Amino acid sequence: MSTLLITFERLHQFAQEVFEAIGCAEAEARTAADALLSADLRGVDSHGVARLSGYVRLWENGRVNPRPNIRIVHETPSTAVVDGDSGLGLVVAPFAMQIAIQKAAQVGTGWVSVCNSNHYGIAGYHAMQALGHDMIGLSMTNASPLVAPTFSMERLLGTNPIAVAIPAGQEPPFVADLATTTAANGKLEILQRKGASAPQGWIQDAQGHSTTDPTATTRGGALLPLGGDREHGSHKGYALGAVVDIFSALLSGANYGPWVPPFVAFLPVAPDLPGKGIGHFFGAMRIDAFRPSSEFKQHMDQWIRRFRSARPVEGQERVLIPGDPERETEAERRLQGIPLEASVAEDLEKLGGKLGVAFT
Amino acid sequence: MSTLLITFERLHQFAQEVFEAIGCAEAEARTAADALLSADLRGVDSHGVARLSGYVRLWENGRVNPRPNIRIVHETPSTAVVDGDSGLGLVVAPFAMQIAIQKAAQVGTGWVSVCNSNHYGIAGYHAMQALGHDMIGLSMTNASPLVAPTFSMERLLGTNPIAVAIPAGQEPPFVADLATTTAANGKLEILQRKGASAPQGWIQDAQGHSTTDPTATTRGGALLPLGGDREHGSHKGYALGAVVDIFSALLSGANYGPWVPPFVAFLPVAPDLPGKGIGHFFGAMRIDAFRPSSEFKQHMDQWIRRFRSARPVEGQERVLIPGDPERETEAERRLQGIPLEASVAEDLEKLGGKLGVAFT
Repeated sequence: MSTLLITFERLHQFAQEVFEAIGCAEAEARTAADALLSADLRGVDSHGVARLSGYVRLWENGRVNPRPNIRIVHETPSTAVVDGDSGLGLVVAPFAMQIAIQKAAQVGTGWVSVCNSNHYGIAGYHAMQALGHDMIGLSMTNASPLVAPTFSMERLLGTNPIAVAIPAGQEPPFVADLATTTAANGKLEILQRKGASAPQGWIQDAQGHSTTDPTATTRGGALLPLGGDREHGSHKGYALGAVVDIFSALLSGANYGPWVPPFVAFLPVAPDLPGKGIGHFFGAMRIDAFRPSSEFKQHMDQWIRRFRSARPVEGQERVLIPGDPERETEAERRLQGIPLEASVAEDLEKLGGKLGVAFT
Repeated sequence: MSTLLITFERLHQFAQEVFEAIGCAEAEARTAADALLSADLRGVDSHGVARLSGYVRLWENGRVNPRPNIRIVHETPSTAVVDGDSGLGLVVAPFAMQIAIQKAAQVGTGWVSVCNSNHYGIAGYHAMQALGHDMIGLSMTNASPLVAPTFSMERLLGTNPIAVAIPAGQEPPFVADLATTTAANGKLEILQRKGASAPQGWIQDAQGHSTTDPTATTRGGALLPLGGDREHGSHKGYALGAVVDIFSALLSGANYGPWVPPFVAFLPVAPDLPGKGIGHFFGAMRIDAFRPSSEFKQHMDQWIRRFRSARPVEGQERVLIPGDPERETEAERRLQGIPLEASVAEDLEKLGGKLGVAFT
């Protein structure tokens, strides 16, 4: 596959201008571009600028409100529910995470459940907003149904990711960001494009049988919860995905389970929805609400160094700390630029043409 | 294997008297028996009364303080750190969970990290304490190193479980309780006793190779994180186990990673420990800190009914809700009694003889 290298700054400017072109205010367009592009920087190419046209199509279908009145609809000292007013998740999520951080500053922790939102990019980006405040950040979201719970023929859950960002001292922060499935949907899309097989335990076909055909999910098949099958603990991945769904949507009044609206604009939204939009859940915990931050960070450094220096198994160089690969990719891409597949570059060029935004 | 049936009440009385015999106050002995026996009721036989002698041996080795001064050492409106003063985890954990619940009553949520504790039984029991208060409960704990992170030859994490209990309306509550490994250690012990093989993906041998020999963990092998191998997402199980370790121990000042003291009294405690005892982490979130409880519960009922009525795959009767199997076992065992393996019954008889407590 041929790829094009483009600087982060240039790509960011383009994305921001696209968001402005669909009617976002300048500051919100910048916020959305920050969140979206963090995926490209961190190497999660499936969730970054490759989805920009998808967001625009949602706007074209009237499912994204470019000038939302995002507001708190209920709160206590440590909690809030935010209504995203159908805004871009890329804008609603940073708003909600800031509230979690403010509440943590006041009473130790802050927890915000969000309804009436849209897809928010990568979970890790939002959790990481807490790091600069000497806080632990948590972020999760539900998503369109693609995953079959253990023993289910039907798709009832999204890939429902969980992210946890934890500051360290001299070491870089610990950043876990994981879909609650065996494999992320983005990895499946890569296999689909290559015409390659998927490993056993990633997907089932429309009859509920395990399959290695990555296209099965486009014909009624499903992704499998982390664990793959019952014997390997898929009921645990299912339970985790369910918790994400409940915290994100049932606490806030968003749609849940099979009723979560699809990301792609060509699929219809189900009738008689039980809630509003899709849901997210954010948390922030001040480190010094538990113990002095310097003490905590010294032990985080020791934790990280002990794990990183563990004896690796044959054929592996070292044990990784969650967040290591993404951080290394980000450092590289900030210097060298972000690689875009030719098909993505073409799509962006077309999108720019349509909206009157120059791509290069 | 021959088994003995014993009523819950009788077994509870025995356990309570054993805890009193090692010096616990009556109320604390009752609390400990409640927590311990909940494992037997719910079918998690590996974590129940079968471990009673293990707890007593820890006391004999001076590692359990039967009259602990359990206290809050730091707090904010929504957080606390509790020092368990080397008490039984079965007593320290209920104390800490009550603080989480009190804080949630006051400011919406409560989060408590605990150091200087011991093993606390099953994670789910503690999370479930929140249910009666119309709250969501969370519970996690670190444990002795048995698990090799992805790519690691060394055991650096415990089976580090996460439990989440969520109230519903007419439906029974959602209760997820999962070790962050492919298989719980208790399941491995059963295979070891039977001389049976383990599935691929549960364990690695001392050289870090995948093996089906369940005894490999007794010769330098390790349990594997949920996912099993990198291709099936073991880095996610590792990240989750790591988060449990950090929330439980680095926020509180307990030991972490490879330094967590072993449950079995015959293994030495490492020198130069970085913390005190083992660590737990508890959370409570008031439902009505987010939305009216009746509304939430109505949607929980709808969620549960939709998932439970999903079309099952061939060979399976139905899709389960987390907590279903344990609740059914509890109902049965409360009526019919708790089955004890002959070897466990003998061990308890001996224990009773030593401490002057009648077993039957």
